[in-house]
Formats: sequence, C-alpha cells, structure tokens
Amino acid sequence: MKIGVVGTGAIGSFYGAKLAHGGRDVHFLLKSGFEKVKRSGIRIRGKKENFHVAGVQGYKTADAIGPCDLVLIALKATNNEALLQLIPPLLHQRTILLTLQNGLGNEDFLAQHFGDDRVMGGLCFICLNRISPGLIEHLDYGHLTIGEFIGSPKSRTRALAREFQQSSVVCRVVDNLMEERWGKLVWNIPFNGLTIAAGGITTEDILRDDSLHSAALVLMNEVIEGANSCGYNLPREVAVEYMKRTETMGAYKPSTLLDFEAGRALEVEAIWGEPLRRAQANGTAMPRLEQLYALLKSLNARRK
Amino acid sequence: MKIGVVGTGAIGSFYGAKLAHGGRDVHFLLKSGFEKVKRSGIRIRGKKENFHVAGVQGYKTADAIGPCDLVLIALKATNNEALLQLIPPLLHQRTILLTLQNGLGNEDFLAQHFGDDRVMGGLCFICLNRISPGLIEHLDYGHLTIGEFIGSPKSRTRALAREFQQSSVVCRVVDNLMEERWGKLVWNIPFNGLTIAAGGITTEDILRDDSLHSAALVLMNEVIEGANSCGYNLPREVAVEYMKRTETMGAYKPSTLLDFEAGRALEVEAIWGEPLRRAQANGTAMPRLEQLYALLKSLNARRK
Repeated sequence: MKIGVVGTGAIGSFYGAKLAHGGRDVHFLLKSGFEKVKRSGIRIRGKKENFHVAGVQGYKTADAIGPCDLVLIALKATNNEALLQLIPPLLHQRTILLTLQNGLGNEDFLAQHFGDDRVMGGLCFICLNRISPGLIEHLDYGHLTIGEFIGSPKSRTRALAREFQQSSVVCRVVDNLMEERWGKLVWNIPFNGLTIAAGGITTEDILRDDSLHSAALVLMNEVIEGANSCGYNLPREVAVEYMKRTETMGAYKPSTLLDFEAGRALEVEAIWGEPLRRAQANGTAMPRLEQLYALLKSLNARRK
Repeated sequence: MKIGVVGTGAIGSFYGAKLAHGGRDVHFLLKSGFEKVKRSGIRIRGKKENFHVAGVQGYKTADAIGPCDLVLIALKATNNEALLQLIPPLLHQRTILLTLQNGLGNEDFLAQHFGDDRVMGGLCFICLNRISPGLIEHLDYGHLTIGEFIGSPKSRTRALAREFQQSSVVCRVVDNLMEERWGKLVWNIPFNGLTIAAGGITTEDILRDDSLHSAALVLMNEVIEGANSCGYNLPREVAVEYMKRTETMGAYKPSTLLDFEAGRALEVEAIWGEPLRRAQANGTAMPRLEQLYALLKSLNARRK
C-alpha cells in the first residue's frame, strides 16, 4: 500500500512517521521542512515512545509522489483550497482520502471535489507539539478513530484500521463518523473557544472559575442539542464525562490556543462556524455558539 | 446648596465643573490631581463649549469638605467599597446622594449603607475624555437623566434637575430610574462588551461584520427580555432604534474599551454581572449575557 501524507504539521508527521516506522511505504509532501527532513528524518520523542525514521521519502511536489492507495490529509482546514492542486496527482481510481483534520466540513469538501466514495475521516485523540520540521513531541494519548464518510464501515475501513494497528497506533472503526466528530466538538467548541476568547487561559482556569465552568458546561449541552437536531444521538452524559476528563488534564492549553498565541490561523469555520450553520439549518438556535463564533472570527482576523 | 463631588474622573469633573461654572457651591474631593487642580482649575474643552473653572474648591479628604446638601458620586463602581469611608463625613440628615455611575447595583449599595431615602441616580449620555486631572475633553452629547431610587419623582427631584438646567446641563426627570438604567444597558451590554471581547474593535467593526452585528442585536433583545422579566416595560423597538443610532457613531470605541486597553478595571459587575443575576433571579435565562459576562470577567482579571 502506497501512502501519501499531505500536511506535515504535528498530526501528519506523527501518523506518517508511525506508519513508516511500522514498515509502510510512506511518501511525505514537504514544504519549508524539505531539506531538514530529507537530511535528518523524522523524530518522535515522548515519554511513551521515542523513535526515529531515517531515509524519509520526502517530495517537494505532489507530482513527484504520484498516485497513492491512501492519502492522509492533515493540512489546516483553512488551507483546504490548496488541496485542489495537491490531491489530483496523488489519485488513482481507488485512492482513499483519509482526512485527519478537525471539525466539520472537511470530508464534504473532499467528497465534493474528488468523489464521495474515496473519502474517509479520522479523529485524532492526541497531544502533540511540533518543535520543528521533523521533530515532534508526543505528550499524551495517540489513538485514532476512523470511519467512512458515506455509509457504514466496509472491509476497506477495517483493513485501514489494521494498517494503523500494525504500526502500533490504537485505531478504532466507528459506525457513524459524523456523530463522532460532533462528539469531539462537544469538548472542542467550549474549551478551544473559551480558552482563547477569555484571554489565553488554560482548561484549568476554566474549571476553577464558576462563571467559565458554567459557560463551558451549558455550551457543551448546546452542542449536544445541536448534534441531535442534525439527527445524531449524543447522550447528555457526554458533557459530564468530558468535564471529569478535563479535570485530569491540569493546566492544559488546547492546540488552537497555542496556534492563536503564535499568530497562526484558527480553524474557525471547521470547529465553530460549520456546526453552528448545520444546527441552524435544522432549526436549532445555538445562542452561545453563535456569539462565541462571532467573537473568535473577529479575534482570528485581528490576531498578531 | 452645598455640593460635594466624589470621583473626579471625566464624569465627576465635567458635571462638577458645569455646576461650579453655573455659580454653584461645589466642593471636589481630589486625590492624585489635587495639586494640579488647585493650581490650574478645571478646563472643559470641546466643539460646543470651552470654559475654565478657576479657584476650584478642592480637598484631600471628605472630612475637610464636611456635610453637603448634595453629593455627586462618580467613582468607578469597582471602587464602591471606598465610599464607606468617603461618604459619612459628607452627610447631614437630608443629604442627597446622586450616583452618576454605570449599570445596576450602585443605588442599592448606597441605599443599603446610607438609607433609601437619600438615594437618587443619574444616567449620563455623554462622550468625554479625561486628558489629565482637571483637563476634560467634551466630545459629544451631555444630557443627564435623573430619578429617584425609591418611588416616583418628588419636588426635590425636579429641584435638582433645575440646578443642573440652570448650569446649562440638559437634565430630564424620569419616573422609573431603573427602567432607564436597563434601557441604557440594552446598548452598553452588547457594545461595551463585544468591542472588548472581540479583540478591541469599534462599534463600526461590529456593524460591518454580519456575525457580530447579529450577535449584538440578539444580545440587545436578550437584555430587553431580561429587563421585562424584572417588571420593566422596554419595547422591542429599542434595539432597532439603538442600532440606527449606532450607525451614526462612526468608528467609536466605548469608554470601557478605552479603560480596558489602558489596563484600568472594568465595571464588570455593574454592567454585565448584576443585570444577569437580576434576570436569572426572575427566572429568565440570558445565555448570551451569561457567556459574555464570564469572558469579560476573565479578560478583566487578566488585563495588562
């Protein structure tokens, strides 16, 4: 199986390196980090694992990679337009596109331009930090949840999960990918959003402040209602469970906050805008999300 | 009528100077600006008027002022605790306390500590900028709306309005002071709040951005509902009227945003917290205000 990786931030570098380290035939599309990664490879370092991939198959263009059986897509969703140029050279008739991007709308974008059938999605539950091109710090977690964009899991879905599992990535196949995405947003919408809008605070700061704790909880419930108005079936207990899990995280800064503080673009539409629009299209007002989205869009446009 | 002024920021200096310029016996409690104001007086400069009050009666302590017939209170609401020391020396049995402070809760605070009967409130519709102690720039507007904290206007209410009118301050007496305060909050809650939380933008930025424009409008409606749940009777058209008026303001930065940018404390409780609590106590959820309040409280605690 020939695998292409588009987007070599933390996520693309990590899962690509895991597959390459597991003996898969992985081809990385590299931009600014090309020279360094060709020379020094990719290093994953962390408490649980520490490994190095030498002789990385790196390329400056998608044409140089050519058609793949699987393409991992890990670009920022804000750069999706670039995929219109990057993906076509990587396609043959049965190429699978697996988006590891955040939020809603990325599978739809790929399906619209490259066909429903080839699109799959993955949710990454992982804390990573990209120190420099080819140097990734693995802080915590690491499992992947994958599913089909259209319909239930097929034999190819399970086969893909095995590819990851054989490269020592815990990978689970889910029946309803979009329900999983909404489920993840129940956490991401409040915690990624409020840590930014409240002035650059940690998840712990939210939990310790009565008003922010309450704001996070009611926003979680709003997202659950929004999801369910779109036909999903998220139990209300999800919010309470997430709160408990957040309590174990300590003074955590979500990656979007780190992005924001570093002046990088936020995936405002994928994480906040698209869920809002979908719930509204189904007749559900999401007053808190609507306000938070407006604020984040403004903050994002004015980030330093 | 002997008049004391406590709080010589822009509001206290301006209205105190107007009364002094109109020939009233005005005594200013001065802190950091004592030397300068004693030496140079108070100057009000602006397009509409430009005058100077020489020989200002300024004092370093409330004891030095002694009992007054009227005390204008124009401290930041965040400093209300200081009033517990500052007010008593200014009181005789019939001293009127007129708070010109923002938001809700200030009359209640005064009534609780100094008695219901003497408390009146005023809303200032004015754009001022305090350049330095004793130097105030008058940018726009200037009228005052006053009323009784408890009950309907009395002869003293109208007499006080005449004091201002005779000093060329447009002053109107209102039947229901608290309804007026809520009415002003219909504008202040969204515009003072969103300009800060959206990253330091102007009222024009809000009007030009579809999401923020909508966020401001729905928040206005939420405040109207909150007010009416507390027994007031604000018509829904207030929101539309305010929007129209805001369109004439240009790229205006509300004073709270200027305060925030200068690192000064926000009156978070008076403007956002207290209205929220009052509506909630009357069984009305204010989801947007609740979230905005939580964000502003956090931003205020972390201001530079």
